[in-house]
Amino acid sequence: MHGQMMDMPLLISSIIEHAARHHSDTEIVSRRVEGDIHRYTYSDCNKRSKQLANALSASGIKAGNRIATLAWNGYRHMELYYGVGGMGAVVHTINPRLHPDQIAWIVNHAEDSALFFDLSFAPIVQAIADKCPTIKHWVALCDADKTPAISAANDLKNGLTTGVVIDIKSYEAFIAPHSATYHWPEFDERNAVALCYTSGTTGNPKGVLYSHRSTLLHAYGSCLPDAMNVSAKDCILPVVPMFHVNAWGLPYAGPLVGAKLVFPGPMLDGKSVYELFEQEKVTFSAGVPTVWLGILQYVGANKLSFSTLKRTVVGGSACPPSTIATFRDQYGVEVVHAWGMTEMSPLGTLCKLQNKHLNLPVEQQQKLLEKQGHVIYGVDMKVVDDAGNDLPWDGKTYGNLLVRGPWVVKEYFKADGGDPLQYNAQGQGWFPTGDVATIDVDGYMQITDRSKDVIKSGGEWISTIDLENLAVAHPAVAQAAVIGVAHPKWDERPLLIVVKKPDAQVTREELLAFYDGKIAKWWLPDDVAFVEAIPLGATGKILKTKLREMFRDYRLPT
Amino acid sequence: MHGQMMDMPLLISSIIEHAARHHSDTEIVSRRVEGDIHRYTYSDCNKRSKQLANALSASGIKAGNRIATLAWNGYRHMELYYGVGGMGAVVHTINPRLHPDQIAWIVNHAEDSALFFDLSFAPIVQAIADKCPTIKHWVALCDADKTPAISAANDLKNGLTTGVVIDIKSYEAFIAPHSATYHWPEFDERNAVALCYTSGTTGNPKGVLYSHRSTLLHAYGSCLPDAMNVSAKDCILPVVPMFHVNAWGLPYAGPLVGAKLVFPGPMLDGKSVYELFEQEKVTFSAGVPTVWLGILQYVGANKLSFSTLKRTVVGGSACPPSTIATFRDQYGVEVVHAWGMTEMSPLGTLCKLQNKHLNLPVEQQQKLLEKQGHVIYGVDMKVVDDAGNDLPWDGKTYGNLLVRGPWVVKEYFKADGGDPLQYNAQGQGWFPTGDVATIDVDGYMQITDRSKDVIKSGGEWISTIDLENLAVAHPAVAQAAVIGVAHPKWDERPLLIVVKKPDAQVTREELLAFYDGKIAKWWLPDDVAFVEAIPLGATGKILKTKLREMFRDYRLPT
Repeated sequence: MHGQMMDMPLLISSIIEHAARHHSDTEIVSRRVEGDIHRYTYSDCNKRSKQLANALSASGIKAGNRIATLAWNGYRHMELYYGVGGMGAVVHTINPRLHPDQIAWIVNHAEDSALFFDLSFAPIVQAIADKCPTIKHWVALCDADKTPAISAANDLKNGLTTGVVIDIKSYEAFIAPHSATYHWPEFDERNAVALCYTSGTTGNPKGVLYSHRSTLLHAYGSCLPDAMNVSAKDCILPVVPMFHVNAWGLPYAGPLVGAKLVFPGPMLDGKSVYELFEQEKVTFSAGVPTVWLGILQYVGANKLSFSTLKRTVVGGSACPPSTIATFRDQYGVEVVHAWGMTEMSPLGTLCKLQNKHLNLPVEQQQKLLEKQGHVIYGVDMKVVDDAGNDLPWDGKTYGNLLVRGPWVVKEYFKADGGDPLQYNAQGQGWFPTGDVATIDVDGYMQITDRSKDVIKSGGEWISTIDLENLAVAHPAVAQAAVIGVAHPKWDERPLLIVVKKPDAQVTREELLAFYDGKIAKWWLPDDVAFVEAIPLGATGKILKTKLREMFRDYRLPT
Repeated sequence: MHGQMMDMPLLISSIIEHAARHHSDTEIVSRRVEGDIHRYTYSDCNKRSKQLANALSASGIKAGNRIATLAWNGYRHMELYYGVGGMGAVVHTINPRLHPDQIAWIVNHAEDSALFFDLSFAPIVQAIADKCPTIKHWVALCDADKTPAISAANDLKNGLTTGVVIDIKSYEAFIAPHSATYHWPEFDERNAVALCYTSGTTGNPKGVLYSHRSTLLHAYGSCLPDAMNVSAKDCILPVVPMFHVNAWGLPYAGPLVGAKLVFPGPMLDGKSVYELFEQEKVTFSAGVPTVWLGILQYVGANKLSFSTLKRTVVGGSACPPSTIATFRDQYGVEVVHAWGMTEMSPLGTLCKLQNKHLNLPVEQQQKLLEKQGHVIYGVDMKVVDDAGNDLPWDGKTYGNLLVRGPWVVKEYFKADGGDPLQYNAQGQGWFPTGDVATIDVDGYMQITDRSKDVIKSGGEWISTIDLENLAVAHPAVAQAAVIGVAHPKWDERPLLIVVKKPDAQVTREELLAFYDGKIAKWWLPDDVAFVEAIPLGATGKILKTKLREMFRDYRLPT
């Protein structure tokens, strides 16, 4: 027997329509590629998204077509989220930090029908235009008078072009002829709304195809007090890029709650972001640890403080405990540790105290807050051994972390790689995250490693992340990475690789002594290697595959 | 093209399963009808809900069957929510304050298969047992040794019984033989989960049949920071009864976020509730204004304060501004005004400040907080004239309030009363709330009256609620109601009906003078009537139909 409640599909168009109706004059502020500041309201955003939907329809774009973007965080990118998704097409955000060959591969795999790009990325368009036959429309996110002239290159390295000039429209010219009157269509909420490829460090990238339903449920979950805790009292600046798992859902969460949004555009250095924080009275932000290090360095060097910023969510990779402590103790800013994946829309866990923790000693609270945290309702998780058996939630036992929920991937786009799920006795599928983690009795999860990075020494596991976090707490260390290197007796032993801070001096022995009393003796790295730079991937994560290659022939001291 | 995300139905069993897995030892504390305090955890609650599901199945209860409850807020009622709903049956909460004849009518209309009741309500069972042929199981919510012996009455007024002893089981005996091992079944999320009848002041009660989907979406929405703002940091005491629109969804919201829950059982007087607040360190509560008046009186008379209570949500009827002010100024407790209906699951709007209001003068903030508030994403609303045309959102223009959303009723149970919706040009159905309201430019709604209560004087509307709120701010007034009475020239004019506080003295002239400068001159009531009591309905609302009957022959002074 069905309930007798209104039956309306969960579509992302309802979010922008809600914001336009009920928070009509709340602002969206964007720093543009041109360098100036652009301001308008949710009402304006909805109107222009509708204009875009009309323009796309007039250009022959149909429901289900993929529309690629190479763009920073900004209001036109926001309009693409809603205009493309709202009309039933799929917004395919591409990470511009990937190599052009990879980008071309992704565009072809997705069979994108159009590509919208910021002027910063004209060189990418030049490089891939000849290789992407499915793209029918190249649209530059700029005013009509800024439309770039780009010739396709077939030999970029040597600067040779085919001489074929690409037909490029400006975004403003593309939407200008079209009406802002448009009724967002109603359709199956399980239809696709967005596509994002994982920046896998091995093999080809894999696409995750989000549905309207999964995106909306994730949006509700992401705003909860124990998650992002965003409200109409907030002014949100997403530093995390809109090309990186939908900026962790903030372009949906913001209008859902009617928060003011501030988009930083291409300028993500500490100074530029800090200035926007202050000018626009930002209360909440989110980004990867490296961004926060940059901001802290700028603020510290200039003896500044944060006058409105209250909370930040840090994710993408583990945030060093020292960064959390600096924000809290020096600046009164709460850093919330978060964990997720492209395959999870992306939020899985966030780390906040609960009622039962409020009377714990501060050190215990801080220790807890270094974990990746507690699931939001909607996500379930467990740790299992290699045979798939459940492991205890004791905060100690390491296992492979599996997740499940309505905003978790079921299979990759075009079912690439077959069925990735592991099934339990009840036939429920669980997604293997590739992370190794512990879960404690209160449900707090802590990543101890990527399953392919964990060091297996004499049958026991050593967490490279723990060793790295301890190393970066040393005042002379700018960056640190730990990898396993072959060892005749123990199979693998840890090697600490360090980038020193400019002008800082520290020796191998001093660094190893720094671990004293903080870890089990047998975890101590066998050696330290000093390097100029540690290779990072397109989303700012340490490329351990590359590091292992670099140190392939390295021999540990005996 | 469908997205490729995990496809799992939104079922309420996933809420209690989430709480049991991820907040396993968080407590549910209940004051029982027996007077003692019962404590257990979400893990226990899930286990016993599963036992109940097994017991119901063994008793022949099938998916879709309606299971009635006559019960206070307590852990066994919670188990009924999850055990009944989780197995696919429908928990039908009945308001025990209704007349037994109405209760029998509702049970028969719903064709309930079983009835679970607190011992307090044994007299109701006695009165209705003979009249409810669909009930196959009568279960008393008590231990086996407390099972009451009840004979059916066919002439309750005169204490005559049929002599037929009703077969009553105790809840504990009912579930004891059954295993706590049970896999919550997966089924269509649009299936019904709960049923609640409106306590309509005219005509027969009408049933609202909630679905799993509507209940879950409402639960997400209700926890948002701008709504109930509940989190795992909270200890929630729902004073609002679980027989009254699912205690505003708190039995779902609590386990969704992992908050500690405290159920007050039958003792809702100021002293009893206050003592639970203090003993259990309650941070958040919710209830109708009359409950809060009782608590304030007790706390004031005994010169107490609230040591942990931070926030309350007040709804059901408009909360007098003076109550909001007393909580804020004397006790540091935030009172959040809320508005909803049985037909809306029930939450529609809540009243909190937004980013743009934070720098307003305090008086303007307070004025704003007296409104019913802003919709949660998921609910849309508008005001229309009698012809259905949209009225402006200017904070002044009154109109009929219509709502729409995935947790709003589509039609009443068994389609009673035909299609209640009003359709717009796009064919979207809107539910007419029966309220008259204004909406301001920021989307804040304020109820000015029930459409049947509003006073139409010389073609203009006068809000009875405004007049009542002003009257109860007078120190001598305990309760106030305003109704329209016939007037030869103006059609209708307002009559103020007042219950004085014990020992308080006030005259007609003093009360009318109290309105000076606070309202338009033509709004001033034409007369004041002092009464001993104002008739209240089963949910504590003023019965204006009754008042109009009482004052049918009343003639205004000329």
